[in-house]
Amino acid sequence: MNRNRMRLICSRCSQSLPFRYQNMKCTCGGTLLVDYDVEQIASMLTKEALVQRYPSMWRYYELLPVSKPDCIVSLGEGWTPLLRMYESEKKLPIRQLWVKREEQNPTGSFKSRGFSAAVSLLKEAGVTKAAVPSNGNAAGALAAYAARAGIAAYAFIPRDCPPLIVQECTDYGAHTFLVDGLIHDAGAIIDAGKDEQGWVNVGTLREPGRVEGKKTMGLELAEQLGWKLPDVIIYPTGGGSGIIGMWKAFRELQALGWIDGPLPRFVCVQEEGCQPVVDGLAARAQVSAVSAEGACKPNPTGMRVPNPPDLELVLSTVEQSGGTAIALPAEQIASAAASLGALGISASPEGAATWAGLLAGCDSGWLRPTDSVVLFNTSHALKYATLAGLTQPRTIRSYADFRSL
Amino acid sequence: MNRNRMRLICSRCSQSLPFRYQNMKCTCGGTLLVDYDVEQIASMLTKEALVQRYPSMWRYYELLPVSKPDCIVSLGEGWTPLLRMYESEKKLPIRQLWVKREEQNPTGSFKSRGFSAAVSLLKEAGVTKAAVPSNGNAAGALAAYAARAGIAAYAFIPRDCPPLIVQECTDYGAHTFLVDGLIHDAGAIIDAGKDEQGWVNVGTLREPGRVEGKKTMGLELAEQLGWKLPDVIIYPTGGGSGIIGMWKAFRELQALGWIDGPLPRFVCVQEEGCQPVVDGLAARAQVSAVSAEGACKPNPTGMRVPNPPDLELVLSTVEQSGGTAIALPAEQIASAAASLGALGISASPEGAATWAGLLAGCDSGWLRPTDSVVLFNTSHALKYATLAGLTQPRTIRSYADFRSL
Ligand SMILES: Cc1ncc(COP(=O)(O)O)c(C=O)c1O
Ligand SMILES: Cc1ncc(COP(=O)(O)O)c(C=O)c1O
Repeated sequence: MNRNRMRLICSRCSQSLPFRYQNMKCTCGGTLLVDYDVEQIASMLTKEALVQRYPSMWRYYELLPVSKPDCIVSLGEGWTPLLRMYESEKKLPIRQLWVKREEQNPTGSFKSRGFSAAVSLLKEAGVTKAAVPSNGNAAGALAAYAARAGIAAYAFIPRDCPPLIVQECTDYGAHTFLVDGLIHDAGAIIDAGKDEQGWVNVGTLREPGRVEGKKTMGLELAEQLGWKLPDVIIYPTGGGSGIIGMWKAFRELQALGWIDGPLPRFVCVQEEGCQPVVDGLAARAQVSAVSAEGACKPNPTGMRVPNPPDLELVLSTVEQSGGTAIALPAEQIASAAASLGALGISASPEGAATWAGLLAGCDSGWLRPTDSVVLFNTSHALKYATLAGLTQPRTIRSYADFRSL
Repeated sequence: MNRNRMRLICSRCSQSLPFRYQNMKCTCGGTLLVDYDVEQIASMLTKEALVQRYPSMWRYYELLPVSKPDCIVSLGEGWTPLLRMYESEKKLPIRQLWVKREEQNPTGSFKSRGFSAAVSLLKEAGVTKAAVPSNGNAAGALAAYAARAGIAAYAFIPRDCPPLIVQECTDYGAHTFLVDGLIHDAGAIIDAGKDEQGWVNVGTLREPGRVEGKKTMGLELAEQLGWKLPDVIIYPTGGGSGIIGMWKAFRELQALGWIDGPLPRFVCVQEEGCQPVVDGLAARAQVSAVSAEGACKPNPTGMRVPNPPDLELVLSTVEQSGGTAIALPAEQIASAAASLGALGISASPEGAATWAGLLAGCDSGWLRPTDSVVLFNTSHALKYATLAGLTQPRTIRSYADFRSL
């Protein structure tokens, strides 16, 4: 396949540029995204041919930016299960409910996808050192994929992030540092050091791989549902690359002529106290924002991104989709995690937030009885465990002990 | 499909009986296994038809014991990645190396497979309470699948097992108890209480589902490798149901005429200090066993099963395969986990033991330069984390801090 026809296009001013690896900022300030020659792809790839391919995100190779197949760095990512929730959907005023189990990716979170693509591009470009600012899962994914590729990884993580996710980074051999600050403070350290250290910054929207990798969540969803998209996607939003990537997927599928009908409405869920998408949408709609900013301290999860790299792009995407955003109190997220657990699903706080958002959307009537809804469980509950939070079951020696409990 | 033609056959005396759900012990003391009407299956299922099916272990429905498709209890199990280890295989005196990433199952371990099948059978039988003695992962899997099915789960786990795996059981709402003893002590509690409590014991080899579910690891391996099996499978062995199940898979594929050529040689890996398979093979070969039993205390992993329910069946299977068993010191297992981590793979101690076994087999010359080898990473490293064992990276505020480290 001739990759010379892959270009970059500005998501703000639509300027088109030749493909280049780094620097995804347009002169207008917008974000550059990869632009494929869809006509060419349509002439070589069919839905029917896809069925025969191996179930991994790389089945969509033609829609991914890697040019040399032997530079693909794979650990077994993508084609995660899409689980129908029959029992729950009977009890809720919606038509269908699904959970996309992204925690079954190789690094226990959906971040595997973005980094499989991003690290493949690093390998293709001959890069030897990469750095990322991260609330944890992105760092773990960089660490794993860089290890697989033989690239040195540097992870900068806010110090209050979950200890097991930090552990994961060191287990994969990444140079791991805790940062006394938030994710943008970690990003500032990388920017300050990148020339001297020779780091390539693979932070959100800094290079093309991560959005393209996350795009495969949208491609898969379409294929797994028989090329019929759901009405609503509820997604835990931090930097917003998942929203940007999935929307891009849907537009590409439309251009390929593989799907038709309306696209899903996105519901971005965030935690109260760090809710830039919620506040941004309210501001654009000239509704007074009911921000709880300052009122409470958000937990260290992937949703805690006060300054998304291109908030405007996230907001306009959600608006275009006819979607919305909601900030949820920490207690609702915690009880949603318990609810999902009781259904047999290990949900991270981010994944649990989608369940809390689902309940809120049912209550408010924003979700309709005709809606089919997909929740993204983006990470595994156990990655967030702290010893302080562990339950301690009773210890017994015999059945007599059991009976006397 | 007419399931009336499914029977049970004794793995010791070959007596054939009608299929029944519980009690898998033959009058001769052997274990009963499910016996399918392979001719009938061959007439309705082809390899080519399989390609079109959804990638989950339930694609092998005809070779699984559930009769009513709507009783299938699924959380997205099976079709885990089979990862080729190109870099490592260049450095080792073998031909090919693969890792089967079983930790990507819904409950973070291969136990999801056995319990998807076992809980489906419970549902089909209308059972409402199930209990399991377990070193942890089986309990977590029962907990999750029982939650999905609306069945009450009771988990009995040796008290020194990993706290996060215990946590997982309670997160899924199982009635969870720590036992002051080993896995057979936990089993004795269930046996003592099962009549009074109405528990169905879903312990290893107590019912047909778990072996049949694990069998899908063997079916998948064959399909993923283009119906050409590897020369060697290295597998962390506890109760041995994985070995029994995979061997059964290979025999069924032979009977279907889907594979030919020699079957893989099994290498059972165990930890020094709890090595019944190693010792049992040595005894049968009239070699004096070099058991370290008593000499060291084995770690609480899935390999720590001093009294496997049907050791004889495990031993005869390994022998038939032309395989072997090896007990590894704890330090070698720990350093193997670090090696796999540095390759981007999160390996549990059991998975790491397969890597240690690989190195030992290369050193001893038991593995040959022509061998293709598959390692089973049966669970996720993070499930075994203890806060005491966590690394604590340095905390920085700025790039200047980084430079001054
Ligand atoms: C588990 C999890 N969910 C959601 C997010 C938010 O991702 P996005 O950048 O796509 O908004 C993150 C980001 O760190 C995450 O780790
Ligand atoms: C992670 C892990 N690996 C291996 C085993 C051993 O399994 P088997 O019963 O198939 O020998 C267990 C059983 O508990 C386990 O949890």
